[in-house]
Amino acid sequence: MPFTAEMDALRACLPQRVAVSRAHAANGQVASYIPDLAKTPREALGISILDPSGNSASAGDSGLPFTMQSVSKVFTLILALMDRGEHIVFSKVGMEPSGDNFNSMLKLELVEPGIPFNPLINAGAIVISSLIKGDGPQKKSARILHFFRELAHNDALDYNLEEYRSESSTAFRNRSLAYFLKDNGVLKDDVEEVLDVYFHHCAVEISCPDLARMALVLACGGNDPISGQSLIPRRFVQIAKTFMVTCGMYNASGEFAIGVGLPAKSGVSGGIMTMVPGRYGIGVVGPALNRKGNSVAGVHLLETLSREFDWSLF
Amino acid sequence: MPFTAEMDALRACLPQRVAVSRAHAANGQVASYIPDLAKTPREALGISILDPSGNSASAGDSGLPFTMQSVSKVFTLILALMDRGEHIVFSKVGMEPSGDNFNSMLKLELVEPGIPFNPLINAGAIVISSLIKGDGPQKKSARILHFFRELAHNDALDYNLEEYRSESSTAFRNRSLAYFLKDNGVLKDDVEEVLDVYFHHCAVEISCPDLARMALVLACGGNDPISGQSLIPRRFVQIAKTFMVTCGMYNASGEFAIGVGLPAKSGVSGGIMTMVPGRYGIGVVGPALNRKGNSVAGVHLLETLSREFDWSLF
Amino acid sequence: MPFTAEMDALRACLPQRVAVSRAHAANGQVASYIPDLAKTPREALGISILDPSGNSASAGDSGLPFTMQSVSKVFTLILALMDRGEHIVFSKVGMEPSGDNFNSMLKLELVEPGIPFNPLINAGAIVISSLIKGDGPQKKSARILHFFRELAHNDALDYNLEEYRSESSTAFRNRSLAYFLKDNGVLKDDVEEVLDVYFHHCAVEISCPDLARMALVLACGGNDPISGQSLIPRRFVQIAKTFMVTCGMYNASGEFAIGVGLPAKSGVSGGIMTMVPGRYGIGVVGPALNRKGNSVAGVHLLETLSREFDWSLF
Amino acid sequence: MPFTAEMDALRACLPQRVAVSRAHAANGQVASYIPDLAKTPREALGISILDPSGNSASAGDSGLPFTMQSVSKVFTLILALMDRGEHIVFSKVGMEPSGDNFNSMLKLELVEPGIPFNPLINAGAIVISSLIKGDGPQKKSARILHFFRELAHNDALDYNLEEYRSESSTAFRNRSLAYFLKDNGVLKDDVEEVLDVYFHHCAVEISCPDLARMALVLACGGNDPISGQSLIPRRFVQIAKTFMVTCGMYNASGEFAIGVGLPAKSGVSGGIMTMVPGRYGIGVVGPALNRKGNSVAGVHLLETLSREFDWSLF
Repeated sequence: MPFTAEMDALRACLPQRVAVSRAHAANGQVASYIPDLAKTPREALGISILDPSGNSASAGDSGLPFTMQSVSKVFTLILALMDRGEHIVFSKVGMEPSGDNFNSMLKLELVEPGIPFNPLINAGAIVISSLIKGDGPQKKSARILHFFRELAHNDALDYNLEEYRSESSTAFRNRSLAYFLKDNGVLKDDVEEVLDVYFHHCAVEISCPDLARMALVLACGGNDPISGQSLIPRRFVQIAKTFMVTCGMYNASGEFAIGVGLPAKSGVSGGIMTMVPGRYGIGVVGPALNRKGNSVAGVHLLETLSREFDWSLF
Repeated sequence: MPFTAEMDALRACLPQRVAVSRAHAANGQVASYIPDLAKTPREALGISILDPSGNSASAGDSGLPFTMQSVSKVFTLILALMDRGEHIVFSKVGMEPSGDNFNSMLKLELVEPGIPFNPLINAGAIVISSLIKGDGPQKKSARILHFFRELAHNDALDYNLEEYRSESSTAFRNRSLAYFLKDNGVLKDDVEEVLDVYFHHCAVEISCPDLARMALVLACGGNDPISGQSLIPRRFVQIAKTFMVTCGMYNASGEFAIGVGLPAKSGVSGGIMTMVPGRYGIGVVGPALNRKGNSVAGVHLLETLSREFDWSLF
Repeated sequence: MPFTAEMDALRACLPQRVAVSRAHAANGQVASYIPDLAKTPREALGISILDPSGNSASAGDSGLPFTMQSVSKVFTLILALMDRGEHIVFSKVGMEPSGDNFNSMLKLELVEPGIPFNPLINAGAIVISSLIKGDGPQKKSARILHFFRELAHNDALDYNLEEYRSESSTAFRNRSLAYFLKDNGVLKDDVEEVLDVYFHHCAVEISCPDLARMALVLACGGNDPISGQSLIPRRFVQIAKTFMVTCGMYNASGEFAIGVGLPAKSGVSGGIMTMVPGRYGIGVVGPALNRKGNSVAGVHLLETLSREFDWSLF
Repeated sequence: MPFTAEMDALRACLPQRVAVSRAHAANGQVASYIPDLAKTPREALGISILDPSGNSASAGDSGLPFTMQSVSKVFTLILALMDRGEHIVFSKVGMEPSGDNFNSMLKLELVEPGIPFNPLINAGAIVISSLIKGDGPQKKSARILHFFRELAHNDALDYNLEEYRSESSTAFRNRSLAYFLKDNGVLKDDVEEVLDVYFHHCAVEISCPDLARMALVLACGGNDPISGQSLIPRRFVQIAKTFMVTCGMYNASGEFAIGVGLPAKSGVSGGIMTMVPGRYGIGVVGPALNRKGNSVAGVHLLETLSREFDWSLF
């Protein structure tokens, strides 16, 4: 199926597919651990799909603003790789799925040398935040935001400061992780400064079209096919996509790989960034989460589309 | 690059690539936990690559016979899926990488409901052995061997009975796992009968060309493109390939996905089965293992080739 | 209070104390993991208290026969110490409370060198069974039974063979533990032979007066004050009593030490052996167990009496 | 042996026993995790033994000042019990040995409801610090110091502020524990305020005679037999002594109970407080620690004396 024909088919079917998947939101819960998140409408579901020619299909609540949360970790990983290179980054975080919860401390204590198993679990992403270049937390955060704006081709991208403050004042488990890493010697900087960077990039507000644009850059090997800009070295895109397959959906990554078969990263705000390599960048939002922390309706929608359009990499 | 041109390039470069990678075997150890395995030559390294037209390239010790060990688990999983369907299989084993050693018992005790995290770790593969249809262990084993012969298109494929006996008489950890699963109610059959099936399929002796042929069937969605036979439903191939990416190389699967980027399954005898989807089935053997249990020289060779010929899925 | 006055007071109050504590049995469950145990009456409660002069007080279902189960582990530990000495015994089992369930495998996998944390958890007691001297499992079992008879001063003590068979045919978790220990090299003998010894001593049938007599020997430093026989070297009694304080009541040992303050060992059949050093041997039975595996009514009764008669060691 | 005769014997033998045990310090390491501790002389060893009549025996470096560190946890536990009662205290910390390291986080994550297993491991002691009454951290600390001075009958007892600052600025693992507890809802107060109380009581400087006096109060059921003051309700002494037996020597408590058989609490500065109930309060210092965190020479000395004078409770 040539791209444009499939895009037409997507445009035609998306509203109905969204309507069906939306019903599944009733089986999930909006995250409450960041107080401000709890306000999001549980039944929301939106999707944007963007192809390299700039054609797009959107449906449902694709305009709903939401914070990136863990989705941002894919891009801070890439920026850290661009800033420090593979060798330094992978001396601080591993490459393996952990099999534990995203905020687990077990393997830090049990498995030598106590570095996070991968850069997408919380412990790993906190270490990644510490590797971003910049003189102090504000400059680091500014560089990250600048990078995100470039990728989304949207200079208006900014923090949701209310959610930033909400998370910053309640993120005791992340502080616990960060101090553990500091004790292990993995984290060298001041814990509160590192967390400030981390909370900021988690709180960047976005909507589905932005996320689809960012994903499209990954789908196209690091180039923005619409602007023609080369934004990320291909090797780092490859690394990021691999982690998205093996660890992107928390400890339901294996199930997602079998059910959908695309590189993806979810966030606790209900966002999912995914892509069909070479073909589409995709942004999804659906705040009701399943037990594993992924958007119930969003995952259902992606399963439906992947099966219908035969998108699985495998 | 058209297939045949790349095959020519492979034929030309393989001997030199094998020679370079073979030197890395010195960093590994031949497995000793099955006494008979310890006899294999540590510095051996062989590879066979087969394309859908039947063209092949081989180098090094590609003719060395070795037992399939954990490589066989991919095919018993597929046979169990064909025998019982997804629903029953995934009520008994999960879909997630475990983050622990292949023979770990931690998650069976710690994570409800105590089913193995995936079908490729030992606990999971033992459960899969119990799901193969057949009246008693001998008939189950016969069905498995028949299936392997079909996939390898080689009726001479058979057990290495010395290694079977060697493993059967020393596999205390596998017995421990099996009794734990029996206690949890995941395993219903007699433990020794299940293990007899498991030890038999681990002990099927093979060489690189056989493995490449079996892998080619997976690379071609379940069809043997040479014989034209349809051997496995495509959905089950997809499931198997996904597990090979997320869990196929023990708890170095993430690293392999980043370094090589192909679905693969390794075994303690030093075998690795991998594939370039749609293009090649690949069989590798190199008995010296790294700390994670994968062939040192074999992984090095696949990294070299994947980078050189740009094979990564990601 | 001189002994005999307190014994009079005990005789006077026991029936009422038993009646009050018996009501608590409703909060517990009779163990069902050994099928045969499930037949015991849930509301039963009995106690026998014996002093060095041979005076005794009994109340409730003190004549109810029950199998020793884990209570036997105190005496097999002592026999192993007598057979092998401290040095060998403590090269095979540790001296520490584990903090985990009695049948847990976690620390065997996580904590080098993989020996059981103490001789009273299942893994430890299985190792202890393997250390008993004797040519083959039958002779070992015969020596253990002989030792138990001596301690209880009762030649009629014997196995409940129905419960022996019941446990032997269903004890998958204990088999799992034993094979793990075999794999770790802690257990040298044949697993089924070791377990046969273990299941036999767990199945020795007893009643409260027997248990009180055995406990009295411990309370009197290894001497039976009634017969005048010296049965156990004092050092081994000391070791046994220490383990009873730190690990005797599974992972409720700390709570029992605070609430009762006496060395004790419980079993899954509802038995508790305890003692007031120098003063009493005490046997209790109450089959309804709490979540930690100890007799609900039995623990309540001992708390009541220890507080009333100020028995705590601490 | 009447008290005074034994005291004479102790006075006579202590110098030689100290000399012998001091040689064992060579097998240990002075703690380095609090930078200031590393300055203590490794080969130091001192002991003071005090009886209810005020007779004492001291030898070695009994005058060496050292900070109480974990030894202080026994007394903050008692003060918390006096401030809040058993019910509240044991809703926040458990009663069981953990089997893990003193600073482990495993069970907080793995075992519901995520409260510390006992009040003597770090996590538990931090919770206990939060339970001390007082309007803000300074008043809480003042109350604790006042209590310690009363128990030691020494108004000069004070903080070593250099060690307080040293620990406060480096205690990343304790911060990690505290934030975990805050996340679990076990800790309600501000983490830094709670830790300030905790670091202060750990940094109270003391020497062997002070520690012997404090221990004597416990040995005498809460009464200071020299001043005649009643300082602690007997029930809380009983609770404290029980914890000292089951958890006082970190995860070597079982071994200490078997080797020495006395309630004891050690600290990372090399201090050990122990007692012979009804007879002696004992303070020991020996900065070289074994792998489990206890004073090598101190434990050796106590083993020697307990065996020689038959002090074991068991």
